[in-house]
Amino acid sequence: MPIQSINARNQFRGRIKEIIDGPVVSEVDVETPHGIVTSVITTRSVKDLQLRVGTEVLALVKATEVSIAKL
Amino acid sequence: MPIQSINARNQFRGRIKEIIDGPVVSEVDVETPHGIVTSVITTRSVKDLQLRVGTEVLALVKATEVSIAKL
Amino acid sequence: MPIQSINARNQFRGRIKEIIDGPVVSEVDVETPHGIVTSVITTRSVKDLQLRVGTEVLALVKATEVSIAKL
Amino acid sequence: MPIQSINARNQFRGRIKEIIDGPVVSEVDVETPHGIVTSVITTRSVKDLQLRVGTEVLALVKATEVSIAKL
Amino acid sequence: MPIQSINARNQFRGRIKEIIDGPVVSEVDVETPHGIVTSVITTRSVKDLQLRVGTEVLALVKATEVSIAKL
Amino acid sequence: MPIQSINARNQFRGRIKEIIDGPVVSEVDVETPHGIVTSVITTRSVKDLQLRVGTEVLALVKATEVSIAKL
Repeated sequence: MPIQSINARNQFRGRIKEIIDGPVVSEVDVETPHGIVTSVITTRSVKDLQLRVGTEVLALVKATEVSIAKL
Repeated sequence: MPIQSINARNQFRGRIKEIIDGPVVSEVDVETPHGIVTSVITTRSVKDLQLRVGTEVLALVKATEVSIAKL
Repeated sequence: MPIQSINARNQFRGRIKEIIDGPVVSEVDVETPHGIVTSVITTRSVKDLQLRVGTEVLALVKATEVSIAKL
Repeated sequence: MPIQSINARNQFRGRIKEIIDGPVVSEVDVETPHGIVTSVITTRSVKDLQLRVGTEVLALVKATEVSIAKL
Repeated sequence: MPIQSINARNQFRGRIKEIIDGPVVSEVDVETPHGIVTSVITTRSVKDLQLRVGTEVLALVKATEVSIAKL
Repeated sequence: MPIQSINARNQFRGRIKEIIDGPVVSEVDVETPHGIVTSVITTRSVKDLQLRVGTEVLALVKATEVSIAKL
């Protein structure tokens, strides 16, 4: 079902650079203009969304999931 | 205690642009090369870390927290 | 930006029944066939998405966020 | 240790329909009256809780983990 | 509904030492043998569970939510 | 990059007791003075951080990820 917009404040647009498949979860590495963003999602989702190297995606993160470290 | 390195694969370096204070949690907006990264952390942590507009920080996200949407 | 599909395996469609506003985060209660699904998102997102009582939404949960309890 | 009640506002009761085992994490699919709820937990927890197809469980989600998308 | 057991591998038993109330979420500080464990849950859950200073509770964390830092 | 301090309110210091390797994620069990704390992180992070049995680490949890159950 197409979604108009989502609450995730942090959205990183890019293309999939690599997928590491596992039996339950897979790692999806997204190349964005400012570096790689890494995601771990279910392997079923990788198949359902037909994700492949080169697919254009949005990596999304809820604000409550972001930690802050001081340098 | 100083930390040498952390497992969070997604690290966004930047400076705090805005803090919205609440009684329990606060929103911390970090200006990074990726654009603004928004975090919600406890107001106690904002005080303990002495975060202010302009403070240099690292916004960190575990890979298991990143969702993938297809465009 | 419209999204074609997302990896969140758990999607609950419904209408917003109530919004409790806070200075930083708000509670959004969605009436779904499963019963009420409760979400806490940033108050900024509530405004950006123009969420109101009655708005049709999808409540989304990553599979890695779901715990299992035995009865 | 038996638990009287838990803060997770979102509780979905059902029976396990399928378990996909992995070396570290497993996918547990719970059939509820209104659709499948999918969870990824450690394979150790699957064993410790003696989860099997047919086991009656509660799938639990913290409100801070629920995202909202507009249709 | 009483729960027999839960998959959260990390369970910290203790008594509530302090509650900081907010309009949407509240901070609950639990005194455990590990030291203080801090939780942010909805204020509605604090009321529904009738949490007060001194209440005996279990603080629960899914293994997928735990980060590892090297010293 | 060394980190001075982090917002995660819940920090458990200990030594790694066991690592269960998977193709995508690994389980890291940390022995602390008050029991085992279990984490699931990407196998890449285990390699990048050169984690081994005996490595001294900090297990970190954001307060928004901690649930509360009543006994």
